[in-house]
Parts: sequence; structure tokens; C-alpha cells
Amino acid sequence: MRIPVATRYADYDTKGHVNNAVFLTYFEMARHHAWVERMGGGADFPFILAEATVRYVSQAMIGEALDIEITTAEVRTRAWVWSYVLRGAADGRVVAEGRTVQVMFDYDGARTIPIPDDVRARLAVV
Amino acid sequence: MRIPVATRYADYDTKGHVNNAVFLTYFEMARHHAWVERMGGGADFPFILAEATVRYVSQAMIGEALDIEITTAEVRTRAWVWSYVLRGAADGRVVAEGRTVQVMFDYDGARTIPIPDDVRARLAVV
Amino acid sequence: MRIPVATRYADYDTKGHVNNAVFLTYFEMARHHAWVERMGGGADFPFILAEATVRYVSQAMIGEALDIEITTAEVRTRAWVWSYVLRGAADGRVVAEGRTVQVMFDYDGARTIPIPDDVRARLAVV
Amino acid sequence: MRIPVATRYADYDTKGHVNNAVFLTYFEMARHHAWVERMGGGADFPFILAEATVRYVSQAMIGEALDIEITTAEVRTRAWVWSYVLRGAADGRVVAEGRTVQVMFDYDGARTIPIPDDVRARLAVV
Repeated sequence: MRIPVATRYADYDTKGHVNNAVFLTYFEMARHHAWVERMGGGADFPFILAEATVRYVSQAMIGEALDIEITTAEVRTRAWVWSYVLRGAADGRVVAEGRTVQVMFDYDGARTIPIPDDVRARLAVV
Repeated sequence: MRIPVATRYADYDTKGHVNNAVFLTYFEMARHHAWVERMGGGADFPFILAEATVRYVSQAMIGEALDIEITTAEVRTRAWVWSYVLRGAADGRVVAEGRTVQVMFDYDGARTIPIPDDVRARLAVV
Repeated sequence: MRIPVATRYADYDTKGHVNNAVFLTYFEMARHHAWVERMGGGADFPFILAEATVRYVSQAMIGEALDIEITTAEVRTRAWVWSYVLRGAADGRVVAEGRTVQVMFDYDGARTIPIPDDVRARLAVV
Repeated sequence: MRIPVATRYADYDTKGHVNNAVFLTYFEMARHHAWVERMGGGADFPFILAEATVRYVSQAMIGEALDIEITTAEVRTRAWVWSYVLRGAADGRVVAEGRTVQVMFDYDGARTIPIPDDVRARLAVV
């Protein structure tokens, strides 16, 4: 699914580029949107992040409109991979790519758990 | 009390100045330091913020070391005022000034409460 | 003018409330929108911030949609005041109010300047 | 080299953990420290970030003191790899690990360039 990204002036660094750490916040916005809007989940995520990677491809300039695409790339027993492509909304060029690994987590028991069937089914629609 | 501020590259905006919103984070760092280190309180603050003001006086440049001074300026029945002066560590010039109003809060009862005597006594040493 | 605010998970603090410093970033988003979209200005602002105040009125919870209203409250020779009201989009209750003072600035000459007539005219439509 | 990390209340998310995006800011603080303090470089970095990876190992709780270790892991013709280990200062357990790839960049010419010999020599001491 593709989501428009509302960038902020505070996202930009001294060179007028989006600060590198902010891309993980953009990924988080995409995850939030996918989980809540597409998968019907609550704002309190029942999963934890195990790993995140960003590849910086081109520069996003101040005021440039961006889109982010999030896709379920792989589903394992307790974990799944989401991949991201961040693009300039006007020209479609890739600004950054990345992936995050999520692990299903039971906060009460403080332990990882297998992905429930209903979550597994909904992951397929992202 | 005076506290050194560890600035971050991500604090700076496109003109190489500390982004205006970050000053409230510096104030928060000073509050945290005052409450935990000086007053012996826990990291879970029993007060809420009612108001914050920042006056921007001069520019802080990238990599410049800064100090922040926090002082208890006024203590009322349920609220108190902390004032802040942010200075360049090398030249002592004022970068920003400000004040915040805190209100004692009982999160369980979800209501404001009078400042307990022990907190009142410890506010005097900030 | 009223603008929807795209909040982010990273805006929320440990109590599930929007972190106090983030409100100044919301104000900045409103300024940016007003200056670029309504007034037709460039992303490189020709003014500096002299002062900012936030009054925290009620709590914004995670995932809650917010609107921000920005209004030109006062125009002086070299400076003007913008006022802000941040509201819950669903119930219209006030979450925070505030004001910022902007001063017209010539970055090349590094000095404040009187507000040009065309800017003055466009400030009236915010 | 090992550097203490000054965490901020604003770094923590709704579960009291450091927000995942903030780790890239901690890495950036380590890079800044290594480049400026250890390698004697200026605050205006002559390199760009090509890739960043974070592995989240254990949770850092509010107020916990952290250390970050940065090491030059690999030096190529135009790029080098820095690796990071973020640890709890008290117990030494690993909180997160990661790596970033930097590419030497000539901002005037807007192109990548080979790593100069003096930078290469100084990379060896990080």
C-alpha cells in the first residue's frame, strides 16, 4: 500500500536534506498506517522491532512531497519482514528503501509468540 | 542549578541553528535533571505542564557547547514556575530564556493536587 | 486558516500524550502551511522567531486526529504575532493554544527589517 | 572509541522504551564525536550516508545511562563502514548494534570521491 508522507520543516538538516534518522520515523508512520488502517489493529502494537535497515538513494529536498510504499515481504513463524520504498511524489524517483523485521510479542508474558492466524491473513493484504 | 546541554546534529535546522522546538526539549532535560538529580524524585513525574514560553535571544551554532540554568521562580498552592536561561558555554551570552508552569498532578485520581510539603521544600533548592 | 495535523507515533511520550516540545513543531507546520500555501512564500523563511508560548489545555491521545488553526493576531512595523489553536478533530475541544512572534529578517545583511507592503497585505489573509 | 550517550525524556515512546528511530540519532552522535573529537574534522561532514542498519537487542529504560562504541569496520576506495554497539552503562549488556556506510562526497562537485589519504589514516584510530 502507498501512503503520502507529511514531512516537517524539523525533519530537515543543515544541508536541507531529510535527516537520516527521520527515515525510520517515516517507516514507522507507514507501519502504523498499515497496521491500523489496513489491518484493523489497535494503536498499541503487539509486536516489537528486531531490525531496521535504510538505504539512502537520492536526496529529498525541503517541501518536496513524498510517498511511502509498504509491502509484506516475508512471513515466518514468529516474525515478518516489511519492506519500504520512499519516493518523490512528483517524479516517482526512489529516495530511500528499507526493511524492518517485526516479532510478535506478548507484553503480559514478556515473550515472543507465534503469529496468530488472523494476523497472518491480514499481513497478506499489506 | 546549571547543567551542560548535549546538543545533537539532529537539533539543527537548515540554517545551521537549533530548531525552535528543540529549546523546549532542552528545558525538559533541565527539569528532568533538577527533579531527579537535585530533588531526588523518580523518572515518572507527578506533575503536568500547563504553560511554556521561550524567548529566542541569539543563535546557537552547530557544535557549540551550551549550558542551561534552571531556577524555581515562584511556588503557588498547586503550581510552580521554573525559569530557564540557556547560554553559550564559552562566551556566556544568552541564547534563549524561558519559563514553564508545572501543576502537581495525581495520575490515579486524574486531578490536580496541592504541592506536598516535601516537594515544596525541595523546590527551594533548585 | 485551519490545517489537519498528521501526528506521528514518535510524537507521543511515555504516558501516551503528545510530548510538550512537539507542539512547537505543530505550530511550525502551521506557519509553514500559512506562509507557503496561503501567502505564496518560499520554503526559505525571511523571518526569525523571537518568542513562542504554548498553553496546554487538554491531552491529545495516541492516534487522535488533530486540527490546528493559525491566525494573524497583530502586525507591527518589523514583527507580527500569529496565534494558534490546536483542537481534537472529532470533538472540537481545545488541546493547546499558543502564539509566536516573528520578526522580518534580512539574512544577507543579518539585520531585522520593516515588513514589506506585500507581506503585510498577505498577512491579513491568514 | 566509547562515548557516553545523553538520553532525553523525549527519546522514549509510550512503552517507556527508546523510540526505534532515535537509535540512528545515537549513531549520528557517535559519528559526530568520532569525526570531530577523534579525527579532528569539521562539523560540516564531507561524506554522505549510504546505508544504516540497527539490530534491537534489549530494551533501554527511561533514565538508564547508555554508552555507545563506534569502530571503523572496513575501509574501501570511496566508502567505509562504521559499526556501533550501544550498551547499558551499568550492566554492560548490549541494547542495540548497527552499522552505517559512509561515502566520501565532494559537495561542490556533487559527486563521490576517493577517500583522501589523511582521512584514511585517521579512520584507523576510531
